[in-house]
Amino acid sequence: MPQFKRIAVVGAGLIGGSVLLAAARRRLAGSLACWSRSAEARAMLKGYGVAEVFDNPVDAVRGADVVVVATPVDKMEESFRQISPGLAPGALVTDAGSVKAAIQAAARVLPTHVAFVGAHPMAGSEKAGAAHASAELFVNRPCFVTPTGAEATAEVQRTHAFWQGLGCRTVECGARRHDEIVAAISHVPHASASALMLAVGGLPGFDSATAGSGLKDATRIAAGEENLWVGILLANATHVAAGLRAAEEQTARLRLALEAGDAPLVRQLLADARVLRQSLDRPA
Amino acid sequence: MPQFKRIAVVGAGLIGGSVLLAAARRRLAGSLACWSRSAEARAMLKGYGVAEVFDNPVDAVRGADVVVVATPVDKMEESFRQISPGLAPGALVTDAGSVKAAIQAAARVLPTHVAFVGAHPMAGSEKAGAAHASAELFVNRPCFVTPTGAEATAEVQRTHAFWQGLGCRTVECGARRHDEIVAAISHVPHASASALMLAVGGLPGFDSATAGSGLKDATRIAAGEENLWVGILLANATHVAAGLRAAEEQTARLRLALEAGDAPLVRQLLADARVLRQSLDRPA
Repeated sequence: MPQFKRIAVVGAGLIGGSVLLAAARRRLAGSLACWSRSAEARAMLKGYGVAEVFDNPVDAVRGADVVVVATPVDKMEESFRQISPGLAPGALVTDAGSVKAAIQAAARVLPTHVAFVGAHPMAGSEKAGAAHASAELFVNRPCFVTPTGAEATAEVQRTHAFWQGLGCRTVECGARRHDEIVAAISHVPHASASALMLAVGGLPGFDSATAGSGLKDATRIAAGEENLWVGILLANATHVAAGLRAAEEQTARLRLALEAGDAPLVRQLLADARVLRQSLDRPA
Repeated sequence: MPQFKRIAVVGAGLIGGSVLLAAARRRLAGSLACWSRSAEARAMLKGYGVAEVFDNPVDAVRGADVVVVATPVDKMEESFRQISPGLAPGALVTDAGSVKAAIQAAARVLPTHVAFVGAHPMAGSEKAGAAHASAELFVNRPCFVTPTGAEATAEVQRTHAFWQGLGCRTVECGARRHDEIVAAISHVPHASASALMLAVGGLPGFDSATAGSGLKDATRIAAGEENLWVGILLANATHVAAGLRAAEEQTARLRLALEAGDAPLVRQLLADARVLRQSLDRPA
């Protein structure tokens, strides 16, 4: 017998679509339901044949014991409002947003007869949309679970079980700590790669045809869909701005050392960066 | 009959070692000779069995019609001085350095009975050293050839023929223009990735164990060997510093937009960066 009765996914892009495919393959629920804003995505989801596809979010969540809201970060509060009338008493609402404090605040609009426990599976790609969804997207990926501390323990456990059921390794921490961590490992690198691309693109020596793997690697994440990222960066603006300020400072430090012809300092800065970068590849 | 009589490689790390392996596989010369500063690298090169390995640079270049200087950028002038007494009249000296104006100036110490034409094969890796050398490193890689305009046309043609013989696609331009181009597509991204790594490494949310592919990609080149890069960045300091200043400005622009909560501007900056980044993957 499946672990859950009915899972509903609200917003079925890359993440939401992958939740459906993974839940279907792993027989995680008796039935699956979903809604997507885009008619094209809905047609694609019907084609997958794994979930009932609804034309509006409120109908999609009716009768579900687990609801996953996977709309863009800046649409979350609107999604919570839209689904509220359809939510079954006792349902668990979780989400897949890349920021957690802002979404936790937005979730206050949900009815009191449901539980909300935020989550963030660290499984993305610069490819957006249900067309890139995969049943294996979550396998061995870390997933943050960010309770407020006010929830019933059973609801937090249910949230862990749900994301683990899709293949994730879950990690628990508070929403603010989560936002601080993802600023460092994801949002600041993203914003910084975008800024580097803008800077390099404006230099007199820039020529897209001669760019090698160095520039391509350093800016790969800047190819991400801006409509997703604008919401993420703004919802985590305090941490991201602090990180960008640090990037400006370190860049200026290296620039000043170069302008001064200070070889020992340039060498030291590059060596410190190399040691830090090598630590990312070390097995945990 | 091979195209060249004898090729000598001075400084046989990743690039120099790959020149030897590629020249051997493609039977580009009647014989190959080399020198490396490191006894360990010399032992490895002897083990490859493709070239005569010498204990000092001046003996390595005797009798060669083509000499490739592939020592670090900040060691080039010293290498030119060391090999000068051994150079055969009429020999072509070329190099593989990542900057060209500074090396062109350093090459003025070479005797007048040889020709110097600078070159820069865009075939690197964050892995340094002869241990990572490959006979296929240059295949289809762009190689800049940067004559001053004062050389005999035949010498410039010989330089193109040499690098094409290793598998490169050669591109000709002046040394200053070269330096401007590689600042944009290589040196600024490298320095910027190092600065980002230093910044992120100092943030309270940084944890090397949770870093995902975004941060890893954005900082991959910061793992490069600082002893090579300090010379490159300093020898191209004017262009690199201008590029880093642009990176600081674009980062500040994005940060200020985030701090102001200006969603349309954040979206526009991210969209502009995405379009530029996508242009790098477009077939030329």
